[in-house]
Amino acid sequence: MDYPSKVLSKAVDEISGLPGIGKKSALRLALHLLRQPASQGISLGTSIQNLVTDIKYCKECHNFSDSEVCDICNDHKRNDELLCVVEDVRDVMAIENTGKYRGKYLVLGGKISPMEGIGPSQLRIGSIEKKLNSGLVKELIFALSATMEGDTTAYYIYKKFKSQNVAFSSIARGIAVGDELEYADEISLGRSITNRTIYNEAG
Amino acid sequence: MDYPSKVLSKAVDEISGLPGIGKKSALRLALHLLRQPASQGISLGTSIQNLVTDIKYCKECHNFSDSEVCDICNDHKRNDELLCVVEDVRDVMAIENTGKYRGKYLVLGGKISPMEGIGPSQLRIGSIEKKLNSGLVKELIFALSATMEGDTTAYYIYKKFKSQNVAFSSIARGIAVGDELEYADEISLGRSITNRTIYNEAG
Repeated sequence: MDYPSKVLSKAVDEISGLPGIGKKSALRLALHLLRQPASQGISLGTSIQNLVTDIKYCKECHNFSDSEVCDICNDHKRNDELLCVVEDVRDVMAIENTGKYRGKYLVLGGKISPMEGIGPSQLRIGSIEKKLNSGLVKELIFALSATMEGDTTAYYIYKKFKSQNVAFSSIARGIAVGDELEYADEISLGRSITNRTIYNEAG
Repeated sequence: MDYPSKVLSKAVDEISGLPGIGKKSALRLALHLLRQPASQGISLGTSIQNLVTDIKYCKECHNFSDSEVCDICNDHKRNDELLCVVEDVRDVMAIENTGKYRGKYLVLGGKISPMEGIGPSQLRIGSIEKKLNSGLVKELIFALSATMEGDTTAYYIYKKFKSQNVAFSSIARGIAVGDELEYADEISLGRSITNRTIYNEAG
């Protein structure tokens, strides 16, 4: 499609470079911005630029951060004895959102996946080692995908560090809240029976 | 959701201010930008800012433009005798995209809609008058929505200018290419019979 203006054409091109946004959606978004006060578009542009230029990665856990060490690693009220290993920064956000975890994290930056050519050397295994060598960590919690790749990654880390004085655990696999047993896959259902928990009134 | 970084949080807030993009999609887009070279985010931000600050509206037809008068109005090879009245700049792009029209345009900026509180005074009826007064226009073509509002708008403009020495036409209503008659609505089908065209081999 030909656009009546070069600035419009350029903006549509750039916006449609984002995943899941085609030319038509990009045009719709551009026209929306043109109907708003110019300040909104300027502010949007600035915040995108600040995002890519100003974001830092915590040198401890590799989570996103505004400073050298992130707020979670800097929080001395959090339990240093627990280290939760996750694949991605999104997983940290998801777990934080539950409000159920008060330990520290380590963001691996992916999972072992021969299909995608990702081996242990591309993950931050060295950072786990550094954490374990500090002697503070007593339990290493795997919060990885319930997939072959996630399991492989957990097994690799377990084998590498099992001689160290640390307990290993994995987040529970089972029937998700709201699921009906009839439709649950048999592996999840099997695990949920094997790993049954003591019933109490709180559910 | 809490974000580990203020620049990320700000970017997600701004991006999710766009229509059809929620917080989760905004986060996905922000994380995508962070995986790309920073230059992509900077360029995206700049082009959005340029869009809202640099875009102009053609003073002749009210289409988007990079200059005072748009490329279409400035194109002396186009037929000044035809004036196509459309609601929106998107309609200009859509008609231009067909390659079937070589006249000029006038972007009304909406359609008469009592439900949304839009009356003739909010549309660029004055610009049509100016165009007709120039004496160049011989045919005014309505390319408006096939809705009550579109029909009302066309009727209003027709009544206002019917005493002038100009022909009025409307884009054809009928069965869209690829449609099966069985599923066509009866009004469109009725119009397509009334306004049948001479058959020729080209279809």
